[in-house]
Amino acid sequence: MEKLNVDALFLGPKSENELFFKEMLHYLIDDFMEWRKGYHSEDHPAITADDQIQTSFQQTLLDTRLALVELAGRLQDKSMPWFSTRYLGHMTTDTLMAANLGYMLTLLYNPNNCAYEGSPVTTEMELEVGKRLAVFLGYDPERSWGHIASGGTIANYEGLWLARNLKAFPLAVAEIEPDWVQGLDTWQLLNLPSERILDLVEKAIRSNRFAAIRSASAGQKGLAAFKPGKVLVPQSKHYSWLKAVDILGIGQENLIFIPVTDEYRMDTGVLSRKLAELQQQKEHVLAVVGIIGTTEEGAVDDIHRIVEIRKAFEQKGLSFYFHIDAAYGGFVRSLYLNTDFSFSSQTELQQNLQNLNLMDARLEYPSEEVYRAFAAMPEADSITIDPHKMGYIPYATGAIAVKDKRILDLISFFAHYVFEKKEVHPLLGSYIMEGSKAGATVAAVWTALQVIPLHQRGYGQIVARGIEKALQLYHALENSHPIDTGQHRYIVRALTKPDINIVDFAFCEIGDTNLEHMNSLNQTLFEFFSYKTGRIYTNDFITSKTSLDQENYGDIPEHFTRRFGIPQSEWERVGSVYVLRSCIMTPFLNSNQPFDEFFSRFMNIMKEKLSAITQKNE
Amino acid sequence: MEKLNVDALFLGPKSENELFFKEMLHYLIDDFMEWRKGYHSEDHPAITADDQIQTSFQQTLLDTRLALVELAGRLQDKSMPWFSTRYLGHMTTDTLMAANLGYMLTLLYNPNNCAYEGSPVTTEMELEVGKRLAVFLGYDPERSWGHIASGGTIANYEGLWLARNLKAFPLAVAEIEPDWVQGLDTWQLLNLPSERILDLVEKAIRSNRFAAIRSASAGQKGLAAFKPGKVLVPQSKHYSWLKAVDILGIGQENLIFIPVTDEYRMDTGVLSRKLAELQQQKEHVLAVVGIIGTTEEGAVDDIHRIVEIRKAFEQKGLSFYFHIDAAYGGFVRSLYLNTDFSFSSQTELQQNLQNLNLMDARLEYPSEEVYRAFAAMPEADSITIDPHKMGYIPYATGAIAVKDKRILDLISFFAHYVFEKKEVHPLLGSYIMEGSKAGATVAAVWTALQVIPLHQRGYGQIVARGIEKALQLYHALENSHPIDTGQHRYIVRALTKPDINIVDFAFCEIGDTNLEHMNSLNQTLFEFFSYKTGRIYTNDFITSKTSLDQENYGDIPEHFTRRFGIPQSEWERVGSVYVLRSCIMTPFLNSNQPFDEFFSRFMNIMKEKLSAITQKNE
Repeated sequence: MEKLNVDALFLGPKSENELFFKEMLHYLIDDFMEWRKGYHSEDHPAITADDQIQTSFQQTLLDTRLALVELAGRLQDKSMPWFSTRYLGHMTTDTLMAANLGYMLTLLYNPNNCAYEGSPVTTEMELEVGKRLAVFLGYDPERSWGHIASGGTIANYEGLWLARNLKAFPLAVAEIEPDWVQGLDTWQLLNLPSERILDLVEKAIRSNRFAAIRSASAGQKGLAAFKPGKVLVPQSKHYSWLKAVDILGIGQENLIFIPVTDEYRMDTGVLSRKLAELQQQKEHVLAVVGIIGTTEEGAVDDIHRIVEIRKAFEQKGLSFYFHIDAAYGGFVRSLYLNTDFSFSSQTELQQNLQNLNLMDARLEYPSEEVYRAFAAMPEADSITIDPHKMGYIPYATGAIAVKDKRILDLISFFAHYVFEKKEVHPLLGSYIMEGSKAGATVAAVWTALQVIPLHQRGYGQIVARGIEKALQLYHALENSHPIDTGQHRYIVRALTKPDINIVDFAFCEIGDTNLEHMNSLNQTLFEFFSYKTGRIYTNDFITSKTSLDQENYGDIPEHFTRRFGIPQSEWERVGSVYVLRSCIMTPFLNSNQPFDEFFSRFMNIMKEKLSAITQKNE
Repeated sequence: MEKLNVDALFLGPKSENELFFKEMLHYLIDDFMEWRKGYHSEDHPAITADDQIQTSFQQTLLDTRLALVELAGRLQDKSMPWFSTRYLGHMTTDTLMAANLGYMLTLLYNPNNCAYEGSPVTTEMELEVGKRLAVFLGYDPERSWGHIASGGTIANYEGLWLARNLKAFPLAVAEIEPDWVQGLDTWQLLNLPSERILDLVEKAIRSNRFAAIRSASAGQKGLAAFKPGKVLVPQSKHYSWLKAVDILGIGQENLIFIPVTDEYRMDTGVLSRKLAELQQQKEHVLAVVGIIGTTEEGAVDDIHRIVEIRKAFEQKGLSFYFHIDAAYGGFVRSLYLNTDFSFSSQTELQQNLQNLNLMDARLEYPSEEVYRAFAAMPEADSITIDPHKMGYIPYATGAIAVKDKRILDLISFFAHYVFEKKEVHPLLGSYIMEGSKAGATVAAVWTALQVIPLHQRGYGQIVARGIEKALQLYHALENSHPIDTGQHRYIVRALTKPDINIVDFAFCEIGDTNLEHMNSLNQTLFEFFSYKTGRIYTNDFITSKTSLDQENYGDIPEHFTRRFGIPQSEWERVGSVYVLRSCIMTPFLNSNQPFDEFFSRFMNIMKEKLSAITQKNE
């Protein structure tokens, strides 16, 4: 198998692959134009030369031109140059040529994947893509299912909606068909494992009792009649979970935040203790959410430990739905898959990483915990994964995959199984959250996956570049010498060793133990490296930032501020640390730009800005 | 003011405006390439000629090419030729060149409108577009707000989420600040008019009690603690409402369907009686939903009557949130607006329709009821309107506008007003339902609105074409002679006189009073006119269909079957009528294709298919 060439996948920071891009675009547009002309070629044109020479016609074309030129001007003036290696901020970089071109072409066909009739081609592609993603995540191809959503937030809502309606089902069974769950009390009904509930769903369908049972359940009765239980998420959570529990009627007070460890992963010891406590209080747990790639730190929760904990608690009579929010980090799993999509053993992984030249062996990637977390993903009931993040696809393309597609009947407004049985083409809008949805984004993902397989020789090569550079940046920051601007000396340190490709870091003046000063310094630096000071196009470096505060992270960030010699009393007084945050998604920190050269430029830019700050303050 | 030329806005069924489209596309792409090259022009290329001549590089380009060629092939093989006047089916037709080109360009810049930092240009455009839509819908520019959502379904969810949290707020006020609502009992608290609740929200914010009150409200407590009340929708509802009440924890049993009239509009007499009944039972009403342009019939509910009913009931102590689902028909309002965006008087409207040559006066459009419905839209608390439907924008672009933006604080996960006060750039994701969202779709809408104003000389001209042809089709069908295929004779009749641009119609063999036969006949016709019989590209005509059944429509459709001589007993036996459904969105049934010519071709195609059916059955 010839190795995929990552440089040939992107347009490139200097539009290096411009000729190929334009050639393909022109080919596709010509092809599209001919398709239109060819449909009933005997039909007369609807717009004639007589129409086209009218003044109003020319005026309207001119108006269109002016609007587009204004759009282009505004975009050029203030857009973020993601494509450059000088942009190390949010979760965005150059996107795949295959995806961009597939998207541009397909939007002209304007398919709507809500119903097959509006999108025969892209609905089929969505089912193909959904299946590929589900299998990639380790799910059984026959039992699982997946689809494209407009974003990870919507996918997370859908996961929690599935969980909520699943959890409520056994109570409805007990009401309508008490014999089926004879001997089980309410607590036991609320703690059936997912698979057992889905067996009940299947039984209900087979015996034609599904409609009756569903009409006694949460979707029909609403949450006034069903106490939904607790939702446990790590403190590093994405804010979409706050919105999710509000929207779904669960209530934010039922959201429990589990503290994170020093590595910003969910503290599974605390999780265990919290579950035991809830069990004792007879408070049932709706769902636990684990994260693969937290938004702020790129941390990978110990998915394998959550799986073990669920197994252990199921022995003790407590069960919960397990959803993984891998919106950001999900595609990193490709690094762990052999070309036959089997999960690499540790030995195979190290061999493959070296043979494919994907990772400097001295970086000792991955850690045992991260390896085991990615291996355990298939145990989750559902997983959010966003192609528009580490799939290098344009917005708006999230996705969700579910382990057991029988669950779809619990959110479908009519019975999904009827459709499968009748072999009618799918009406996606009937068993997903969204209604009308773009087929063009689906085509973008489909085209990318045709070119780039979801394993080490495909996406693995792309994601490895970012992870390798993130680790190198981490080590370089940690080992860096103080920056001396003349009168002041500054040190920089990284928050954690990256689990994937995000590096958080902060500067501090040596000897200044005031946390407010440190925060203010980093905020000023961020302003230099963002749209906040002048035109972004002239910036030398662009990054993002985040604040780690006591409310969300407890006292864990104090372990970081301590490293700058800032006393604990300062942490207690200020309660928040401001850090710069770089997602290293760019595939262009490669052999043509050696890391040392990049890092030296990086540190020079930092020194220049620190000097400017020093002068300004004097 | 020069009249906008509608023919110059679209590519055209025969790619008539191909040269302009390509010229603009090339200009925009070149411009984009130069933008990339110009950012730090001193930086070296990341991809060198040495890289590009490698075999693996060429192989990867070839793989990309093959994937794109396969995509193009699949799209050509089975896509719907919306652009043709032979396609009169779903709510899709040719899209605007300005929107397509703006979309294609902007997706390369890949902005994410979740947060300003990721999309400085398109976030500003979204705020501009949101305001324009809100003002277009008749809202006060200073008090209202709007934004782009990925679709009408999501926008409807958001509307109901706003309604739910608004309704729950007074109970929380009573708990935390009882003095503020002294003397009001629970029923009165649940029946405060929207504006009074928003005054309480404002008071809470000004007195720094908002966080405390919100923490006692539905978003925080969940729906276990708040009985949400009833949601009243017309029977012609879109299925998104079934999903909405499930997702939001309200429960489908709290959804009450109000029967429709003979014109498929919500029967406001029944609405009034139902409200009185609920008041008597002390069941509060969360929301009433009116529809502008039902999905199946294009019916326009009597919005003005719902407004009157709300006023009357508020006198009697019952109030509700009023949302309009104008996902489909919202843009038709442009036909009613003078160029200064004031709503035309009946006299002005008729003058303008004639002066601009927008509507054949003999068609007597609009009816008094439809006119008053569009006039009353600004009374609603929120309105869903989809640019990807009658805005002629590609998917996925829905929108929602709210009358009073103070309501946003009720769904924001942190206080929206803090941001406004601090003049910080908006984090859209914090006060809308979605998180990550495309900036490219926003740019598509923005560009279209730059070219096409939302009044009679802009969008009014486009939507008028469809409405005029729908009315002509209606009259032509109603006055058509029987189709004689030799041994059999068939008649065709339309379901209703269109309120906007959808015509439902059905055929029946003269003398055959069996409703199953009639349904089967129309189903077979639909199969001829859809993807179900062979390759869609070779079809002479393409339409969609719908079934009107007793469960959803009561006995109203019997008034239609009766017109074919089908006895009431048949309706009672079968309980459903299958009709063909044509959305006349195409702007190309214009002067170059006179209606008589179009209709004669249409009837010939029908006769041909009916003959084929006759022969097959013999």
